[in-house]
Amino acid sequence: MRVSVIGGGSVTDETYRTAVALGRELGERGHTVVCGGLGGVMEAVCEGARDAGGHTIGILPGPDREAANDYVETAIATDMGNARNVVVVLNGDATVAIDGSTGTLSEIGHALDFGRPVVGLDTHDVPSVESVETPVEAVQTLEKTVGVE
Amino acid sequence: MRVSVIGGGSVTDETYRTAVALGRELGERGHTVVCGGLGGVMEAVCEGARDAGGHTIGILPGPDREAANDYVETAIATDMGNARNVVVVLNGDATVAIDGSTGTLSEIGHALDFGRPVVGLDTHDVPSVESVETPVEAVQTLEKTVGVE
Amino acid sequence: MRVSVIGGGSVTDETYRTAVALGRELGERGHTVVCGGLGGVMEAVCEGARDAGGHTIGILPGPDREAANDYVETAIATDMGNARNVVVVLNGDATVAIDGSTGTLSEIGHALDFGRPVVGLDTHDVPSVESVETPVEAVQTLEKTVGVE
Amino acid sequence: MRVSVIGGGSVTDETYRTAVALGRELGERGHTVVCGGLGGVMEAVCEGARDAGGHTIGILPGPDREAANDYVETAIATDMGNARNVVVVLNGDATVAIDGSTGTLSEIGHALDFGRPVVGLDTHDVPSVESVETPVEAVQTLEKTVGVE
Repeated sequence: MRVSVIGGGSVTDETYRTAVALGRELGERGHTVVCGGLGGVMEAVCEGARDAGGHTIGILPGPDREAANDYVETAIATDMGNARNVVVVLNGDATVAIDGSTGTLSEIGHALDFGRPVVGLDTHDVPSVESVETPVEAVQTLEKTVGVE
Repeated sequence: MRVSVIGGGSVTDETYRTAVALGRELGERGHTVVCGGLGGVMEAVCEGARDAGGHTIGILPGPDREAANDYVETAIATDMGNARNVVVVLNGDATVAIDGSTGTLSEIGHALDFGRPVVGLDTHDVPSVESVETPVEAVQTLEKTVGVE
Repeated sequence: MRVSVIGGGSVTDETYRTAVALGRELGERGHTVVCGGLGGVMEAVCEGARDAGGHTIGILPGPDREAANDYVETAIATDMGNARNVVVVLNGDATVAIDGSTGTLSEIGHALDFGRPVVGLDTHDVPSVESVETPVEAVQTLEKTVGVE
Repeated sequence: MRVSVIGGGSVTDETYRTAVALGRELGERGHTVVCGGLGGVMEAVCEGARDAGGHTIGILPGPDREAANDYVETAIATDMGNARNVVVVLNGDATVAIDGSTGTLSEIGHALDFGRPVVGLDTHDVPSVESVETPVEAVQTLEKTVGVE
């Protein structure tokens, strides 16, 4: 399945490592990462996914696809600013939120609005977002919810 | 100033009355309402604002501006679905959230991301959203924050 | 009715005068101008419309509604770059193109795609765009096509 | 490089074959196809590209990526209607227009507006669009213009 991964664009080393581990888990299990294509959680999850041979899609807010981080395999420039947040979560079958600020909150709202299951790793405390403790638990929870074998 | 009012598209009578009162207060104080143009809180706040002689702008998700509620003075069709949520909060100097579900949550995220002050009347419990008790308090708080005389 | 007026953002004095005259004709006949909100034809048509007491809406590409020209009555910031071109023509019942370059060409395409009648004053030579000689003829042609009394 | 291919969503057999041949040429020469993801020229060019082992990206107007034709490798749903036309041409380094109606015309306008070179195969007669006779000539012309080895 495709998993939208959302989170802070500028994060601590620990959060970065968590997102890399999530990306690796997703890649190993054959899932494609969809993200906002920039730094922080977005870069980390792509790095992990690519390390594991997975696919990564980055949906960028600006007009230049060269702005994507080095681990984005397919970069899509939108030039639509924050409206790209809608596209990020629309294009996943499920969503993982890690850390993150107001942009991430908007994406959680859009993901839930589209009926996407959302799990959170140390992120906003929002009802309907299932809090999980580890990247492995995040992926297992979403696989079960979406019904992926 | 312009005030974006966001909230549920289908609400109880009590919430509807609260939103009408907010619209009236905004209209009486010379503020323009910006909203998503549809029903529930969006309709109620426009009704109140128009009653008080205020202006109302409705930013619609679909392609047809005729979908706007009867109290929208200037309807803007976007045909961009939920991406219109971004435009709703971008076009206000401040935001009031009343009740509301996941779409409203996405708008709170976008509003905060744009640096707009947000006050809430019985809405999502989000840090940075100042909870207020009444429509009058909502308007007074935002006027003070934005620095409107 | 609402009339989308599209055209060059930087124009000769003669083209500016033509667009002012078009705006005046639209305003006098009770039509609302919808445009991209910036300079050149967009500014001229708003100036003419406001002179005649008409209403003007400017749909802007950037995030700041202060970027609108002085004659825009209702400015809508989109922060969606050229995607705002779609919104400009979607929100008119008919379209007038004056002069203009590639952005105007994209708007002509979108307008025709939405089934809007388009008349042109010294603009791109596109089949389905009816070429007219004067602002008065432009308005009369569109009124007849749309069926406005 | 990435090449945006735009054109009619419903085409004759001859046009379909031309678009398949273009896709094959692009795929063989290592270019990635970006298109609107639906039928007609969009489907044909993806079919040709995939036959030749090339990559294909489909940017869809609706909310459902399952709407993509069978030859789209990476589908991106936008739910932004015709605003997706902007994204289609923004994400190519160059553009080929084949046949096509008003939607294609809007894309030609946007492509030129973004400074993308555009070649046309039996499409709209627009200055700045270089008319070519064959798919091979289309690709060679764009490779030379963009400066791809």
